[in-house]
Amino acid sequence: MLSQVVKDELKAIVGEGRYFDNEEDLLLYSYDAFIVQGQPEAALLPVSTEEVSRIMKVASRERIPVTARGAGTNLAGGSVPTRGGIVLVFTKMNRIIEIDKVNRVAVFQPGVINMEFQKELTKRGLYYPPDPGSMAVSTMGGNVAENAGGPRAVKYGVTSDYLLGLEVVLASGEVLRTGGKTLKNVTGYNLTQLFCGSEGTLGLITEITVKLIPLPETKRTLQAVFKNLSDAGRTVARVFEIGILPVALEIVDKVSINVIEDYMHLGLPREAEALLLIEVDGPEAAVAGESGRLTQLCREMGAHEVKVAGTVEENDEIWKARRSAYGAGARLRPTAIAEDCTVPVGNLVAMFQEVTRIAEKYQLLIPVVAHAGDGNLHPLILTDSSDQEEMKRVVKAIDEISRKAVELGGTLTGEHGIGIAKREILPFELGEVAMEITRNIKKTFDPLNILNPDKVVLIV
Amino acid sequence: MLSQVVKDELKAIVGEGRYFDNEEDLLLYSYDAFIVQGQPEAALLPVSTEEVSRIMKVASRERIPVTARGAGTNLAGGSVPTRGGIVLVFTKMNRIIEIDKVNRVAVFQPGVINMEFQKELTKRGLYYPPDPGSMAVSTMGGNVAENAGGPRAVKYGVTSDYLLGLEVVLASGEVLRTGGKTLKNVTGYNLTQLFCGSEGTLGLITEITVKLIPLPETKRTLQAVFKNLSDAGRTVARVFEIGILPVALEIVDKVSINVIEDYMHLGLPREAEALLLIEVDGPEAAVAGESGRLTQLCREMGAHEVKVAGTVEENDEIWKARRSAYGAGARLRPTAIAEDCTVPVGNLVAMFQEVTRIAEKYQLLIPVVAHAGDGNLHPLILTDSSDQEEMKRVVKAIDEISRKAVELGGTLTGEHGIGIAKREILPFELGEVAMEITRNIKKTFDPLNILNPDKVVLIV
Repeated sequence: MLSQVVKDELKAIVGEGRYFDNEEDLLLYSYDAFIVQGQPEAALLPVSTEEVSRIMKVASRERIPVTARGAGTNLAGGSVPTRGGIVLVFTKMNRIIEIDKVNRVAVFQPGVINMEFQKELTKRGLYYPPDPGSMAVSTMGGNVAENAGGPRAVKYGVTSDYLLGLEVVLASGEVLRTGGKTLKNVTGYNLTQLFCGSEGTLGLITEITVKLIPLPETKRTLQAVFKNLSDAGRTVARVFEIGILPVALEIVDKVSINVIEDYMHLGLPREAEALLLIEVDGPEAAVAGESGRLTQLCREMGAHEVKVAGTVEENDEIWKARRSAYGAGARLRPTAIAEDCTVPVGNLVAMFQEVTRIAEKYQLLIPVVAHAGDGNLHPLILTDSSDQEEMKRVVKAIDEISRKAVELGGTLTGEHGIGIAKREILPFELGEVAMEITRNIKKTFDPLNILNPDKVVLIV
Repeated sequence: MLSQVVKDELKAIVGEGRYFDNEEDLLLYSYDAFIVQGQPEAALLPVSTEEVSRIMKVASRERIPVTARGAGTNLAGGSVPTRGGIVLVFTKMNRIIEIDKVNRVAVFQPGVINMEFQKELTKRGLYYPPDPGSMAVSTMGGNVAENAGGPRAVKYGVTSDYLLGLEVVLASGEVLRTGGKTLKNVTGYNLTQLFCGSEGTLGLITEITVKLIPLPETKRTLQAVFKNLSDAGRTVARVFEIGILPVALEIVDKVSINVIEDYMHLGLPREAEALLLIEVDGPEAAVAGESGRLTQLCREMGAHEVKVAGTVEENDEIWKARRSAYGAGARLRPTAIAEDCTVPVGNLVAMFQEVTRIAEKYQLLIPVVAHAGDGNLHPLILTDSSDQEEMKRVVKAIDEISRKAVELGGTLTGEHGIGIAKREILPFELGEVAMEITRNIKKTFDPLNILNPDKVVLIV
C-alpha cells in the first residue's frame, strides 16, 4: 500500500493535474483488452524522461510495482497492474520530435499514436509499415514494448525490424540510450532488440528512433473466394513459390465470414470456406503485373471468384470485411479473447483444422482470421467471462490451441505478447534452459521485481 | 596452460583427426583479418552440437578460454584467442539442413559459407540478401556472431533482419534453442537478437534459422562519375527523397579510384572525386523505370558521366572497381586496417571530409569506400604494423575517426564489430549506464568469463 507521504511525493513530481488516486480514475487504468483486471493505487501521466526517472527513483526506493501503459489495447494483459502500485500512462508524452527524410529516420516519444505517426509520414512520402489491428489508437511505446506486428508483416516485417534506438528509464531511474540514428550499428550487445517485446518488464521506453522507407507508389488488393479452405491454404504457399512477396496475405474463415456478414451485410459468400485477401504494392507497372499473376493463380488453385480493386475505395471495401472481424465477433458474446498462435506457413491449414476441432470439442464459437502469409492465426474465442463453467472450457481450449501450435513447429504468440495470458504455458515452448536465462535477464534489469511484475515471467 | 590430461580429454571428444595442438597447426588459428594475434593451446573442429556441448563442459569445469572461429575473416580481432585456451573451429559443421520454400526459411549449421548458401538459394529462386565483403569465404556462424552487413543492406537490412532462431551452446555446455521457423514470434525476450552480434562472448552458435525472400526478377547497376564529392553525397540523399530505395548505394573516393586504377587498369576517371554505384532490383518494368529516373537524377546533380549496365556482364564490370578496393589498397603497404565508422546519411560528406583531414594530419594514406546509402564508411588505413612510429599515428587516427563518427551522430562500427579493435573506445559511445548493463549481461551468460574473453567488454 502506498502511504500518503509517498503519494504526495509522486504527486509533486508530475503535479496535481497529472496525478490520480481516486477510485473512478483508477478504474480507467485497471484493464486492457484481455480479461484480467487489477486496480492501481496511483496513476501518473509524465510528460518528460526526467519525470519518469524521478518516479522510478521513488518506486525503486519504496519497492512500488510500476506498470507502463499506452492506450491499453494489449490483448494479453500486459498493461494491467496486477499488484496495484503505480500505473505510468504515457499518453501525454506524444510528441514527434523529428521526421528526417534525408536520414530516413524518425524520433518520437512513446505516447505517439501509430496512425497519427503514419499520417505525418504519408504527407512526406515516407512509410513506417507496421500496422497492428489497434493502430488507430495504440501508442508507439506499446507497439515497441510488445513488438507489434500486423497484416503488412508478410513483406515488411514487424516493429523490431524498424527499430534503431531507444531511450529507456531503468528500474533504478537511470536513463539508458541504445542504438541511434544510423541504419547499421553493431556497437555492443543489441539492447534495443532486448527491450523490444519485453512488455515493460525490463525498462520504460521514453524515446524511440525508427527507420523509414519511401512510401510505395501504389498498392492493390485482391479478394479470392474459396469453397475449400485447404485450396486457400495451398494458394498462400504458391504465392511465394511463384516469386511474389505480397504486402499482406490474409485468410478469413467460414465462421468469420458468416459472423461478419450478419453484422455488416457486405454481400460476402456465406457458403465459402475461406476468403483470401492479397495486397501487393510498388511501382504501378510491377503492381499491375503481380496482381494479374495472382488473379490467374487464385483461379488455377480453385477460387470461384476473384475480385481486384480498381480504385482506392474498392481497396478499402475489400479490407472492410477483414477489419470488421473482431468487432463483428465481439458483439455476439460478452467476452472475446483474441488468440495469437503462429505456425510455419506450411502448417497453416493443419492449424485451422485443429482450431475447428478444438472449437467443436469444447462447444465454443471460434471464428478465425489469419495473417496467413506469416502463419499467424487469430482464433477469436467468443464467450462470457461470468460463466464459470464455460470459462473452464475456454481455458482448456486456449491451452490446447497453444500446445498444438508449438507441436506444429510454431509459437505461442506471433504479435500479442505473453503478458499474463501465456505466462503459465511459456515454459512449454521455451524449455527450462531458456526460462532460466529469461529469469536471469529479468533479475539483471529489475533486481527488485518492480517493473510490470507478474508479466512474461514470474520471479519468486 | 592446458594439462596433458585435459588435452587428452578434449581430443577424445572430437577424435584424433579434428584435434590439433602442435605449433604449426595452431599458428593457423592465431590471427584473423585484424592486426592482433594470439596463439591457442588447442584447436578443435567439432561436427555436432553434442561435441560442442561436451567441449564446453570441460572448458567450464577447467575454466579454459574458448574462442569460436569460422573462416577467421573478422576485421576487429573477434576471432583471435588472446588468452590461449581452445579455438573452436566451426568449418566442419557446414551442412545446410533444410531449405524450405513453402515456409520461406532455411536451417543450417554455422560453418556454411555465405556464398555457398546463396548459390543453393538462387537455384530455388530464393534469396538471402546479406552480402558481407567476405561472403565468398566467411561462414554464416561468423556472419550471425558479428551481425554482418554488406552493400545490399540499404534496401534489405543486415543479418539480424533475417534471423529467426538459433541453437546455442552456453558456457555451461547446456543447449539453448531460441526463436523458431515462424516469421513472427514474440514469445519471451528476444534472445535470438541478443546473441546476434555478440561476437562469441555469450554463447556458441550451433544452428541457424533464417527467413528467405523471393529472388528479385532482375537487377541493374548504374555508375556515376562526380568531379565533386559533395555532389555525390547530395545525390545519395536525393535518391531517397525521390522515393527510390536502391539495393546498394556505394561511394568510391578519389584516393580509392586511383589506388584501384593503379592495380586493375579499368579505365576509371582518375580526376573524379567520387564514383557513385547504385543498384536497383525488382520486376523488369520497375527496374527500367527506376534506373531511368536515377540516370536523370545523377546528371541533374552534376555527374559528368553515367553508365547503366545493360547486361549481367556489364553489371559485374561496374562492381569490379568497388570489389577491388580492399585488395588494391592492401597490396600497397604491408598492413591494411579497415575502419567501419557509420554516420547518419546526411553527415556522410562531413565524415568523408573528416577522414581526409585526419589522413593529412597523421600523414597516412587512407582510401575510403562507403556503403553510402546507410552512412557506413570503410576508410582503409594503409600502414606497416612493424613501423612503431607510424603505428602510433595510426592508432591516433583511428581514435580520431571513431570519435568524430560518434560526434556526428554515428556509431563506432556499422558491421565489423567491436572485438579487440574498438573495445577501449566502446564506453565513449555507450556511456557508463549501458556499459554496466553490458557487463551484467556478459556475467549472466558467462559467469566464468571463458567465452571469447577480452572481446567487446573487459570483465575484471
